[in-house]
Amino acid sequence: MKSYHVNLGAGLEGLSLQEHPTPKLGPCDALVRVRAASLNFREIMIMAHGAYPLPVKPDVIALADGAGDVVAVGPAVTRAKVGDRVMAAMFPRWIDGPFDHEYAAQIGGSLDGMLTELAVLDEEALVPIPEHLSFDEAATLPCAAVTAWNALTGGRGLQAGQCVLTLGAGNVSLFALSFAKLFGARVIATTSSAEKAARLAALGADHVIDHHAIPDWPPEVRRLTGGRGVDHIVEVGGPATFERSFRSRAVGGQVAWVGALGAGAQPIDVSQLFLAAASLRGVAVGSRAQFTAMNRAISLHRTRPIIDRIFSFQEAPAAFSYHATGKAFGKVVIRVSEGGAP
Amino acid sequence: MKSYHVNLGAGLEGLSLQEHPTPKLGPCDALVRVRAASLNFREIMIMAHGAYPLPVKPDVIALADGAGDVVAVGPAVTRAKVGDRVMAAMFPRWIDGPFDHEYAAQIGGSLDGMLTELAVLDEEALVPIPEHLSFDEAATLPCAAVTAWNALTGGRGLQAGQCVLTLGAGNVSLFALSFAKLFGARVIATTSSAEKAARLAALGADHVIDHHAIPDWPPEVRRLTGGRGVDHIVEVGGPATFERSFRSRAVGGQVAWVGALGAGAQPIDVSQLFLAAASLRGVAVGSRAQFTAMNRAISLHRTRPIIDRIFSFQEAPAAFSYHATGKAFGKVVIRVSEGGAP
Amino acid sequence: MKSYHVNLGAGLEGLSLQEHPTPKLGPCDALVRVRAASLNFREIMIMAHGAYPLPVKPDVIALADGAGDVVAVGPAVTRAKVGDRVMAAMFPRWIDGPFDHEYAAQIGGSLDGMLTELAVLDEEALVPIPEHLSFDEAATLPCAAVTAWNALTGGRGLQAGQCVLTLGAGNVSLFALSFAKLFGARVIATTSSAEKAARLAALGADHVIDHHAIPDWPPEVRRLTGGRGVDHIVEVGGPATFERSFRSRAVGGQVAWVGALGAGAQPIDVSQLFLAAASLRGVAVGSRAQFTAMNRAISLHRTRPIIDRIFSFQEAPAAFSYHATGKAFGKVVIRVSEGGAP
Amino acid sequence: MKSYHVNLGAGLEGLSLQEHPTPKLGPCDALVRVRAASLNFREIMIMAHGAYPLPVKPDVIALADGAGDVVAVGPAVTRAKVGDRVMAAMFPRWIDGPFDHEYAAQIGGSLDGMLTELAVLDEEALVPIPEHLSFDEAATLPCAAVTAWNALTGGRGLQAGQCVLTLGAGNVSLFALSFAKLFGARVIATTSSAEKAARLAALGADHVIDHHAIPDWPPEVRRLTGGRGVDHIVEVGGPATFERSFRSRAVGGQVAWVGALGAGAQPIDVSQLFLAAASLRGVAVGSRAQFTAMNRAISLHRTRPIIDRIFSFQEAPAAFSYHATGKAFGKVVIRVSEGGAP
Repeated sequence: MKSYHVNLGAGLEGLSLQEHPTPKLGPCDALVRVRAASLNFREIMIMAHGAYPLPVKPDVIALADGAGDVVAVGPAVTRAKVGDRVMAAMFPRWIDGPFDHEYAAQIGGSLDGMLTELAVLDEEALVPIPEHLSFDEAATLPCAAVTAWNALTGGRGLQAGQCVLTLGAGNVSLFALSFAKLFGARVIATTSSAEKAARLAALGADHVIDHHAIPDWPPEVRRLTGGRGVDHIVEVGGPATFERSFRSRAVGGQVAWVGALGAGAQPIDVSQLFLAAASLRGVAVGSRAQFTAMNRAISLHRTRPIIDRIFSFQEAPAAFSYHATGKAFGKVVIRVSEGGAP
Repeated sequence: MKSYHVNLGAGLEGLSLQEHPTPKLGPCDALVRVRAASLNFREIMIMAHGAYPLPVKPDVIALADGAGDVVAVGPAVTRAKVGDRVMAAMFPRWIDGPFDHEYAAQIGGSLDGMLTELAVLDEEALVPIPEHLSFDEAATLPCAAVTAWNALTGGRGLQAGQCVLTLGAGNVSLFALSFAKLFGARVIATTSSAEKAARLAALGADHVIDHHAIPDWPPEVRRLTGGRGVDHIVEVGGPATFERSFRSRAVGGQVAWVGALGAGAQPIDVSQLFLAAASLRGVAVGSRAQFTAMNRAISLHRTRPIIDRIFSFQEAPAAFSYHATGKAFGKVVIRVSEGGAP
Repeated sequence: MKSYHVNLGAGLEGLSLQEHPTPKLGPCDALVRVRAASLNFREIMIMAHGAYPLPVKPDVIALADGAGDVVAVGPAVTRAKVGDRVMAAMFPRWIDGPFDHEYAAQIGGSLDGMLTELAVLDEEALVPIPEHLSFDEAATLPCAAVTAWNALTGGRGLQAGQCVLTLGAGNVSLFALSFAKLFGARVIATTSSAEKAARLAALGADHVIDHHAIPDWPPEVRRLTGGRGVDHIVEVGGPATFERSFRSRAVGGQVAWVGALGAGAQPIDVSQLFLAAASLRGVAVGSRAQFTAMNRAISLHRTRPIIDRIFSFQEAPAAFSYHATGKAFGKVVIRVSEGGAP
Repeated sequence: MKSYHVNLGAGLEGLSLQEHPTPKLGPCDALVRVRAASLNFREIMIMAHGAYPLPVKPDVIALADGAGDVVAVGPAVTRAKVGDRVMAAMFPRWIDGPFDHEYAAQIGGSLDGMLTELAVLDEEALVPIPEHLSFDEAATLPCAAVTAWNALTGGRGLQAGQCVLTLGAGNVSLFALSFAKLFGARVIATTSSAEKAARLAALGADHVIDHHAIPDWPPEVRRLTGGRGVDHIVEVGGPATFERSFRSRAVGGQVAWVGALGAGAQPIDVSQLFLAAASLRGVAVGSRAQFTAMNRAISLHRTRPIIDRIFSFQEAPAAFSYHATGKAFGKVVIRVSEGGAP
């Protein structure tokens, strides 16, 4: 079987296609024929930046996100059977509750990833694919969608009628917009172009603010909310946007601090936090229980993730290059193996 | 000014129309010209049954639910001004958090109610009416709608993709159905007739079970949920339905126990509770903060309550009689005073 | 190696000592030399009653509770190493969050138990023993202590200054008393004899009510709490006490419904629940995260569980018989293997 | 009657003693003979800095904190009667739940304060004094103690066995230390002198770190917690300590961000927050429900606040000067009126 491997900081040149014998299964493992995998910002961090906040093993099989079907199971497996369509939870040991250092092992980092024809996965990592989704679509969910779900639901919870702020058109923001609408919330989205603004509005954003036109957008957010500010902020911009997004919060507002996209420190007037009785919560993907709860919502509403482009397994290097340009609107998917029903 | 008064256990005959001088305002009070009021099951309990779990003062002005406009305010009032369109929170002292015995004073019980031309209300009781609602519509919200909102949101919270069970076509159930759909939940409703089933389906119920056709409906609920059961149950049926609704719950399901509709004790196999890791929570209306949060959802979605019939102030006795028949589908409203825009 | 085995409903006569070869380890398993095990009410349910709400496999090795040291680990194990002193979490798959049907596999039921010289345990089941505890003491914790911790902390949480009601002198009640005092709560305990009352007071109970002297004890609870009632009730009595314990609750009080000790249904006036804005929560042991959190408290306060009597491995049948009499005050322990330091 | 008045930014010179007629009561007011009042850091902010994040009315009667006995009540008052010993909640409208902009009216700011012989208070502001406390002691609680209680209990809650970090020997930190010990937590305190270290240890701190001796103290915190870090941080130091206290947190740790003591912005590496899955919550005093819950704990444990020094009403200017030196260990109290039992 073939797999693509990466090394921390080795860049796109470090992406290598390797041939291996079919791996052996432990009693609690499942062998999954990967049908599709998808890319996230973490791949840029691992490959290009050489910096990633969690352990990455040398020559690890790439990509956290993937979906496929079970082709064999170890003798002790109870959570899956041959033929099941499954995704892998990025942190197989994070079952429920808040994140803990014990759960840090992650697929595509300290554990082998999904850009492989055959993946050996602990059965605890397996999550069934919603029926209406293709493998390509399912492969987009484990990292970005679960992060968005956790951002919106992992704190005091999201209620119909509340207001959510999303930043830009990255995949976490797109999923957050989509989920916020399922919950009956109002969504204000920022973006940088009229074209993206139109797409965000088409996805249900109630208001889109062009941050090129209005660089100091918090007053606009406040105007749109009758002075109140927003209840939930999915902060993905890091130091570049934090001060502005925080200034847009309602009293008691919740900021989900997603990702480590901006590495540097930034002067922040922390007294703001006190005045707002607001809260700030670090969010890094989510638990398997959150993944499962999200899938119930996706299934009920037959939600479909947005895919920008699908590459073949052979084109994987091109997929990485394209992803790195940041031009995609939606997920970049690599179709690993064709076969039967999608 | 004229008011209708009731006495505990005096029955419909005890409903008396009385004339009073315009009441005086304390510094923190608002004088509200009531435009509309509405009836709830509590009225039946107070008048007919002579039993109500909270204090009812003699000759109290009737009805917890009402809406109107502010015509005068005391000198210390900061939460309202003349001309504001307002509703009254049934428990004026219950601002937020769980219910407490200190908050037990209730409008239409220990405090004078809303079936009056002019109501004197502590400013803390005032809640602004969503812009798109008429006074008639607003008058339906304080008791039944807030109860439904509390039932769905006051425990661990409702999430998109979860499943909610409602029982029958009473007003709490109708509001719960409506709110559950705003949150992106799936709703299974029970009812007793094909006609009501059609109306519930029109309101968004995903599945309606006729409990005349299927008296033992928990297996049907389980079938509809793939064996899982429902996440939230808005239990309004009391001893008559508790055993069945509880049997319909998912592992970890939440039962909101609403109202005291059935007075008697009922043998319940409480070991069920243990097995399900479920929870049961007594719900009696809700706080002003819940009322306000609900109004945000109602405003955003331009939700309109269902009114079965509107009576005039003179027809109030007929409204009580009609309400007592239990035939209404939606709220029974009494229009107290006409005037300007509704 | 030797193990004691039981069968559902086979009674004490069904307890059989069997000899087996040393079991083989999977890659994620640890081999634990069991030093001590302890008995719980569930054993009575499994053996004598023939009724247990969770699956029990035929000829299962007995007992959920045990402690020992790791003597070998599979190649993939990361959570333990040879020499570690460990306990087993009763539900190895319940890592954190609310209970779910996926976590139902339990040690001493559907999985082999701890009354064996050598236990093969999934590494996810392992929980380190607090340093100050002996193996005998550690063997008492997994079921009763974790249940008590969950009962007190798994709902809205226990705060210093709140009041907790415990019933009788069973082990869950003893642990609940002990933990409630660690949290700075006030404890009212019921019991049936002056001797037990003295022991409960010695353990820190602020008030002990003899329910033989005062069969209708809720008014006494209310008197002791200045009319307020108790905030947390650890309800272990089942139908026999539920009505009284529920009547003792404060407005907003929380009842943890522990166990299925009384099998039958009981008439309960469920309208009580509504009036009290109280909540009722089924509690069945707890998650590994709760076990770990509890151990932090036990370690900091050097809490020692109460052991009534220790039997040798050979005396296991006598331990079961003694346990079944219900006369023990504290846990009944079976010392499985002696050896080095305790 | 006599009162001391202050003006925003007028400094200590702006403190004026004025004579007024006895104020009139509204129907929901209580007249309280103030026995003692106490100072907080907010007084420095209001008087010296001329900056305070909440509205301050001109010539306001000084001080948020006070205690006294009720000498008269308006006709509608139900929460108090003549003779009651009471404190005033700093935000009279914040009854329960999270802070909201509607609750911003505060005693000693937009509402007249407690450095007066007779205070007119809305009955909703009244909180009974725990029986074992003197008026001097009770006067120390409304601001600093409630802040500490909110910091520890207002997020996910404090559990026995968890670890709390307090900074310095300010009054919020002293109360936090005291309350954390009631909850069975372990406390690590930082301080700047051996003398204060000894006093903190005497109050129950498990470990005291001298930040003069160890300016980079997070590694020491980590060492003391076996590498884990602390679960709760009561961050009172503002920009001067935030980076270090945040670096001391456990995975999933909670930081209560108290007060606005440091006005300026500070470069903070916000990516830290993501990595730790930690949360940060702005805390500004607390609700009346939190005040009441705190009093239950104080009453049960007969906790006594630490008073550094008591000044007479005539010495009020000296009390402000002394308070401003920052040398006090414990609260600075002004005894307003002597009389009967303390």
